[in-house]
Amino acid sequence: MYQPKTITTTTEIIVKFSDCDALQMVWHGNYIKYFEDGREDFGRKHSLGYWEIYKQSNLAVPLIHVDCDYKKFVGMGEKITIESTFIETPAAKIIFEYKIFNQKKELVCTGKTIQVFVDAVTKDLLITVPPFYQAWKEKHL
Amino acid sequence: MYQPKTITTTTEIIVKFSDCDALQMVWHGNYIKYFEDGREDFGRKHSLGYWEIYKQSNLAVPLIHVDCDYKKFVGMGEKITIESTFIETPAAKIIFEYKIFNQKKELVCTGKTIQVFVDAVTKDLLITVPPFYQAWKEKHL
Amino acid sequence: MYQPKTITTTTEIIVKFSDCDALQMVWHGNYIKYFEDGREDFGRKHSLGYWEIYKQSNLAVPLIHVDCDYKKFVGMGEKITIESTFIETPAAKIIFEYKIFNQKKELVCTGKTIQVFVDAVTKDLLITVPPFYQAWKEKHL
Amino acid sequence: MYQPKTITTTTEIIVKFSDCDALQMVWHGNYIKYFEDGREDFGRKHSLGYWEIYKQSNLAVPLIHVDCDYKKFVGMGEKITIESTFIETPAAKIIFEYKIFNQKKELVCTGKTIQVFVDAVTKDLLITVPPFYQAWKEKHL
Repeated sequence: MYQPKTITTTTEIIVKFSDCDALQMVWHGNYIKYFEDGREDFGRKHSLGYWEIYKQSNLAVPLIHVDCDYKKFVGMGEKITIESTFIETPAAKIIFEYKIFNQKKELVCTGKTIQVFVDAVTKDLLITVPPFYQAWKEKHL
Repeated sequence: MYQPKTITTTTEIIVKFSDCDALQMVWHGNYIKYFEDGREDFGRKHSLGYWEIYKQSNLAVPLIHVDCDYKKFVGMGEKITIESTFIETPAAKIIFEYKIFNQKKELVCTGKTIQVFVDAVTKDLLITVPPFYQAWKEKHL
Repeated sequence: MYQPKTITTTTEIIVKFSDCDALQMVWHGNYIKYFEDGREDFGRKHSLGYWEIYKQSNLAVPLIHVDCDYKKFVGMGEKITIESTFIETPAAKIIFEYKIFNQKKELVCTGKTIQVFVDAVTKDLLITVPPFYQAWKEKHL
Repeated sequence: MYQPKTITTTTEIIVKFSDCDALQMVWHGNYIKYFEDGREDFGRKHSLGYWEIYKQSNLAVPLIHVDCDYKKFVGMGEKITIESTFIETPAAKIIFEYKIFNQKKELVCTGKTIQVFVDAVTKDLLITVPPFYQAWKEKHL
């Protein structure tokens, strides 16, 4: 069976007061922000940041999909670890899978995002893999 | 084929400056907030709000799942319509599907949320349908 | 005593679940968002929106000051009224004062914002009142 | 002249994509969140966190005032330093002043928050300094 190549980074975050909702637990929508935190940290560590892409290639990388499955509550002040895994694909897409763990190493949630490349000005979708991304994959995977 | 009963409400929203990201389009995470806007509006129109549930039954209804598929960009000042559809299920769950449209009636995104019932204090999961919800379904579906 | 001319608009908002914090009351930072809601609603009603300014004059109107004094808690589901008052000034500034009231017409908070004009590209500050704003003031005040 | 005692902590933050608005700069309301980040970091370093107060004394510490003066734009990916200074006061209040700097050590904004003590359940205001806070001040200042 074909096994796509992957790269995983981990990012530690402390849950803020303002991340929590009226149940005193992280508001579900904020996990989508944590996924972005993980992705941005991955970008810094592996030279694949929003801003680098934008400046190098005049491309933006909007999401076309996100999902999240919640397993456990997390409360304010808790330290969580975001595990962001880049999943190789031949398509003109950036795919990440996420696992978030609490301090007891319990799985808090899992999720996935899919991003595509669009021209930053016209917003037109790129059908083929942009050269910089092909080069990045060859170098990093 | 079994067709679950559904109830749909529509909610109009004007996209705010602060909903938009550096691409001058709605930040993807804010659609999760729009789903909540739709769900809360449904709750007001059909007596199934977070707060009613909490006060009546001392239950909270956290999400166990959310997904969103993005089709079109939306910019600030645009009027969008959130179509929130309650999907009947025999399980102890609240399921909603969402479609968001722009002013041209183009589909902007689709999504889904699944909520469960937990004791607001102990956070224990309810395995069976709570009586108030059973009564609500009998009355409204 | 000189009394600056003013224009006031009122905007009704329903407090969302996700606006509230762990105390089950609106998180203090969200009032800054409500001020923006009021300002955007003023902009729509009086043709002074972020986006119109940006498109007409290639200017942005960032804040240089905000303050807020909190008087009363507001909880989720409450209907609040934002009173946004444009305060005339000869300077190259946009000044608003805000009062937010709950449903019992009790004062919830007061605040103020000051915005300046900058070139949207270079981010350079405009020292003098831009012509479109002068014209707007002559027409509306 | 009376000079109140102070304690200052510094907190480093990397500006996120989702912190930025359509001008590709930090949205003004997010500085209020950065102040909270600074305050929470102070709380962790000096045992004066929201949660400790809540659990030890069943008190909440809502804001009654915030202000912010903006000096410079900050863009995504920039590293900023939040300087949070606790300002001694004999009143039943917690006062902080903030300075945020960019990587070039340029002042980005200044601000201030004032918090009071309320009973977490009844939301009644405390007029006198609660014993735990008196003890904290004696120990730390």
